Amino acid sequence: MASTESAYLRELYQSWAERMAADPEMDLPTLRNLFEEWHQPTVEPENVSYAEVDADGVPAVWCIPHGAAADRVVLYTHGGGFVVGSRHTHRKLAGHLATAIGCRALVIDYRRAPEHPFPAQLDDAVTVYRWLLGRGVPAGHIVTSGDSAGGNLAISLALKLRDDGDPLPAALLPMSPWLDMEHKGETLETNAGTDALVQRPILEGMSGMFLGPDGSPLDPLANPLHSDPAGLPPIFMNAGGAETLLDDARRFAESARRAGVDVTLDVVPEMQHVFPFLAGRAPEADRAIAEMAAWVRPKLGLV
Amino acid sequence: MASTESAYLRELYQSWAERMAADPEMDLPTLRNLFEEWHQPTVEPENVSYAEVDADGVPAVWCIPHGAAADRVVLYTHGGGFVVGSRHTHRKLAGHLATAIGCRALVIDYRRAPEHPFPAQLDDAVTVYRWLLGRGVPAGHIVTSGDSAGGNLAISLALKLRDDGDPLPAALLPMSPWLDMEHKGETLETNAGTDALVQRPILEGMSGMFLGPDGSPLDPLANPLHSDPAGLPPIFMNAGGAETLLDDARRFAESARRAGVDVTLDVVPEMQHVFPFLAGRAPEADRAIAEMAAWVRPKLGLV
Repeated sequence: MASTESAYLRELYQSWAERMAADPEMDLPTLRNLFEEWHQPTVEPENVSYAEVDADGVPAVWCIPHGAAADRVVLYTHGGGFVVGSRHTHRKLAGHLATAIGCRALVIDYRRAPEHPFPAQLDDAVTVYRWLLGRGVPAGHIVTSGDSAGGNLAISLALKLRDDGDPLPAALLPMSPWLDMEHKGETLETNAGTDALVQRPILEGMSGMFLGPDGSPLDPLANPLHSDPAGLPPIFMNAGGAETLLDDARRFAESARRAGVDVTLDVVPEMQHVFPFLAGRAPEADRAIAEMAAWVRPKLGLV
Repeated sequence: MASTESAYLRELYQSWAERMAADPEMDLPTLRNLFEEWHQPTVEPENVSYAEVDADGVPAVWCIPHGAAADRVVLYTHGGGFVVGSRHTHRKLAGHLATAIGCRALVIDYRRAPEHPFPAQLDDAVTVYRWLLGRGVPAGHIVTSGDSAGGNLAISLALKLRDDGDPLPAALLPMSPWLDMEHKGETLETNAGTDALVQRPILEGMSGMFLGPDGSPLDPLANPLHSDPAGLPPIFMNAGGAETLLDDARRFAESARRAGVDVTLDVVPEMQHVFPFLAGRAPEADRAIAEMAAWVRPKLGLV
């Protein structure tokens, strides 16, 4: 049964759904401010400090757990449909993940849609990845992670690096990835009654802004369900059992497995979209983060 | 001449003023989300970690600079007209101040108006102060600080402690304090053209919510301009030369001086309301924080 504490995220999402329903013409600044509340479920991780950095033009913040390895990095791309969310909403979540792994995290503020449609987000992620390499961090010491749209980027970044012949990261850690720009997942219908936030209209609105006038929902770098995952590094994903985007994670896991990729999907029953936001508050989030960390540490040479 | 970097805060305030003007019926959740942007001018202070704590029922966050004295505390009350703002908007600012002083800061989420009118905010500040004493922090190791409405609380807390016979903090560090619930300061008119945010209507709206149906704008604990400051600890204030609330700081400084209190007011030309929000970004803010710290360190026994 879901913990009492996990209700916090569902209630936050319900409040957003109600406020968006009450103001169907909500403008973009107001919508972005609404989603800035996303940091609220996450308790401040202790013993983590922060430092802002310009990563070759991309604003970013380092999350630096005390005593953590400085030469192992989680490159973190935040969620929010490529439209909302920021390094501020995800700083604490990334701090928890970095603490559990024992490394640093770098949360990047990629350019957002609709001002900057696809592939601006991916281009910025590639820029930061190469910036890390240029600063002496070996590819094998980098993990890509992110949630929702940022989980898409954690995957599409690796696809793009593979296509371009760049050295690949050690592993991928997407959480509740949003991949399907065609909105064809079965759970979009079957979990519509349990997902407190993510419903077809919001996905259609955000994919429209993300793809812009020229993007295709079938582009494998915008929609990794249409990619060939062969050659990707090992992948550990999690997703909530109550969320409409569960099938995105499931379908990508199947596709990756068929392509010979080492892939694990941890589906946590009754949990909402990106339930690791409950880090420090709800046991399901802390457990999911601990499992990601235990899985990835050996891949980073941390034992 | 004001630094180029300091324009950031003025432009943020202008954007808020425009958005409030465009939506005169803006509801409270939207207004609060707008003011949550207040953290944006402040660059993450480096080498500071955070820890959430329940201070006898008042949610709060510790700002813990590496290597700082653990037994000296800035009790920080955030600004926002007693209605908006939070520990999240002011975490970074308090982190800069704590770093400069070499101690910890505790940023508290007192109950806000209009749900909780005066004196709920002051009661919560008193609760946290006594909680600190109960944890073994001597009164002489505590400094009260805060900005705008929180600068009011940094003063009214000391007045209330004095009236109740509690041991007093070592010093007070209010920034751009908002004290005048009658809205009588001359700069409210003479600086109306240079202050990008704080104008009479917003002050009248917030003082109405703060005082509620039963509060008086003449109550010395709501409006310290009507207090007798005799016996208060030493005070170091700063304010911006461009702000409408400048006269609140000036009038309180005069009143405290007449009452024999050791009081200094640092007015920084051309600066907006609570310009120390520009910490890490603009030299005026960094200098103001350094001056507060240099002044207060000996009073905390830090040399």
